Amino acid sequence: MERLGEFELIARLVEGVAAARRATGQSRWGVEVRVGSGDDAAVTVPRGAVATSVDALVEGVHFQRGTASPRSIGAKAIAVALSDLAAMGAEPGEAYVQLGVPADLDDADCLELGAGLAAAAAEHGVSVAGGDVTRAPALLLAVTVVGHADSPDDLVLRSGARPGDRLALTGELGGAAAGLLVLERPELAEGLAPEVADALRRRQLEPEPRIAAGRALAAAGATAMIDLSDGLGRDAGHLAAASGVRLEVELERLPPQEGVREVALAAGLDLAELATGRGEDYELLVTVAPDDVRRAVDAVAPTETRLTEIGRSVAGSGLALRDADGSELPLQGFDQLRG
Amino acid sequence: MERLGEFELIARLVEGVAAARRATGQSRWGVEVRVGSGDDAAVTVPRGAVATSVDALVEGVHFQRGTASPRSIGAKAIAVALSDLAAMGAEPGEAYVQLGVPADLDDADCLELGAGLAAAAAEHGVSVAGGDVTRAPALLLAVTVVGHADSPDDLVLRSGARPGDRLALTGELGGAAAGLLVLERPELAEGLAPEVADALRRRQLEPEPRIAAGRALAAAGATAMIDLSDGLGRDAGHLAAASGVRLEVELERLPPQEGVREVALAAGLDLAELATGRGEDYELLVTVAPDDVRRAVDAVAPTETRLTEIGRSVAGSGLALRDADGSELPLQGFDQLRG
Repeated sequence: MERLGEFELIARLVEGVAAARRATGQSRWGVEVRVGSGDDAAVTVPRGAVATSVDALVEGVHFQRGTASPRSIGAKAIAVALSDLAAMGAEPGEAYVQLGVPADLDDADCLELGAGLAAAAAEHGVSVAGGDVTRAPALLLAVTVVGHADSPDDLVLRSGARPGDRLALTGELGGAAAGLLVLERPELAEGLAPEVADALRRRQLEPEPRIAAGRALAAAGATAMIDLSDGLGRDAGHLAAASGVRLEVELERLPPQEGVREVALAAGLDLAELATGRGEDYELLVTVAPDDVRRAVDAVAPTETRLTEIGRSVAGSGLALRDADGSELPLQGFDQLRG
Repeated sequence: MERLGEFELIARLVEGVAAARRATGQSRWGVEVRVGSGDDAAVTVPRGAVATSVDALVEGVHFQRGTASPRSIGAKAIAVALSDLAAMGAEPGEAYVQLGVPADLDDADCLELGAGLAAAAAEHGVSVAGGDVTRAPALLLAVTVVGHADSPDDLVLRSGARPGDRLALTGELGGAAAGLLVLERPELAEGLAPEVADALRRRQLEPEPRIAAGRALAAAGATAMIDLSDGLGRDAGHLAAASGVRLEVELERLPPQEGVREVALAAGLDLAELATGRGEDYELLVTVAPDDVRRAVDAVAPTETRLTEIGRSVAGSGLALRDADGSELPLQGFDQLRG
C-alpha cells in the first residue's frame, strides 16, 4: 500500500468511522452530535449529567504489536475506556481518539486499527465525534469517552459503600492475565481445550466493557462501583479508601475463568496472583445493601454476565481476605480459589 | 528527589492541580464539576451546547526537552488545546489530561510539568477534572478540553464563510516559527533586541490561546473561524474547503511579528515561509460579513490582541494570494509581507 499523506490518512480514518456511525444509527442516548470530526471541536447538546473519562494504550507498555493485531488494539482502546463509564453506570455517548502513529506502522495497519476502533464504537453505540492523528515514537491511542445519565444521582461513585453492604463481582477473574501468558508463551496452553485457550486470548485482546451490567447495577441501587483494570486487590483497595470502609473478600467465592488455574500451574505462578493481582479483566466490583443483593443479581442476569457475591463491607479501612472458616489470610499468596 | 511510585506521583499531580483550581475559584461558566479526578469518570452537569476538542503534544515531534522546560511543555499542552475552543468562540470549562512519562523524566520534572499545566488551566479558568498517568517511551501529553455556549448557534464553525465576506486575522504571524529557530540556533537572534528575541521564544514556548478574542468574534457575528496551528496557508485552505468558498489573501496586509523578518534573513529562509507555512501562531482566522467588519474589530480591541483585515471570501474554491496591484501570486515564494 502506497504511503498516504497525513491529511489523506486522517480523511480515510474519519470516513471509516463515519460509515460505522451511520450503520449504528443514532446514539442510543440520543445526544445530538451537531459537528463531528473536521471542525476545531465537536459540538454536542447533552441533557442531564455527563461522565467523562480518559484512558491511553501505549505500545510496549499496554500491548505489543507482535501479539496483538492492529484491529484488536483499536478495539481494545475503545473497550478499556468504556469500562470506566460502565463502572459509573453511565450510557456511552461519544468518543474522541488521539492516535500517535510510529514510522514503522504502515497505512494498511493504521486503517485496520481505525476499523477496529470504529467497530468497537459501533458495537457499543458510541459516536466517534473527534480525533487527532500525529506522528509518535511508538503506537499510542489516547481515548476520551463521554457517557450520559438523567441526573448525577443516577451515577455510581467509588465512595458510596457503607458498612454492612455486600461486595459482589461481575463475571470471572484472571482470564486476561492468563491470556497474556498464553499469547507470550503458547506452550502454556498445551493442556487446555482449544476453545478454552481461545477464550483466554480473547479476554486479553478483546475485553468486553460491562456496560449493560453497570447500568443494571446502578438502577438496582449499587452504592459503590469500580472496574477491575489494575486487579481485584488494588481496585478493591481504591474503592475501600474512597468509601472509608474495610472490604472483606471470601476467597473461596472468587470465580476464576476456566483455564486460569491450569495456566497458572503450567507457568509456576500462584493462581491468586493471576486472578487478583494482574488486572485487565474489566469486571465490575460493586457494593449493594444486603436487601438489594437479590435485586442486583436479577438485574445483571439478562446481561452478558452474572453477579457473584464475594464478601462484604465493614467499618474500618483496607482490604481483608478470609478463607472458608473465617480466619484472615495475608493479602498475597492465597490459592484457594474456586473453579 | 526520590523516585515516587505511580500512585504517589498521580496523587501529587492531582493535589497540585486541585490547589490551582481552588485558587481560581469556580469555572467562569459555572458548570458544576461534581466529581473530579479519583473516580472512574468525572461528572459534570453542563447546560446548553458543549464543544469538545483533543490535542496531543509528543516529544520529538512537537517539542524537544532540550529547548523547552517541563513547566512550559505542560502549559503549552493546555494552551494549544484551548486554542481550538477559542476558534469555536466557546468558553473553556474542563480539561482532561493523559500524561505519558518516560523513564528518564524524573519526578521533579514531572511535577514541574504538572505545575505548568495547572497554572495554564487556572489562568484560563479551566478545571482539570480528570486524567491518567502511564509509562511511555517518550514524554506525551494528550489533552481533551471541553467548552460551553448557551446554544450550538452561538458557536462558530469552519463552514459558514460566504462569498463576499471579509477575511481577518487576530495578532501577528511567524513568531512561533522564528522563536523555534532562535531556540535551536541562538546565533540567529544576534541582530535582535533582547526583548524582541524573548518575545519570539515565548511565542514558541508559551502560546496564548485567543479565547477572549474568539468569544468576542463569535458575538460580533463571525461567519467562520479556525485557529492557525498548521500555518495560514494550510488552515485557510481548511476553512475554504469546509465553507465551499475561495479565499483571497492580500499579501501586503499580513502582519508578521517583530523580528520575524530578521530571523528569516539570518536563517536564509523566505519570510513568507515563516509567516504562513509553519504554523503554531495560534491566531484566529475569521470571516465576517462586510457590514460587520467594524463591529468585529471593535469587539476584539479590548482583548489581548487586535483584528487585521487581510482579504476576502469569493465564489470558487481554494486559496489565492494577491499582491498590491491585485495580480495573483503562486502560493509559495512571496516575501512582500508588511513589517
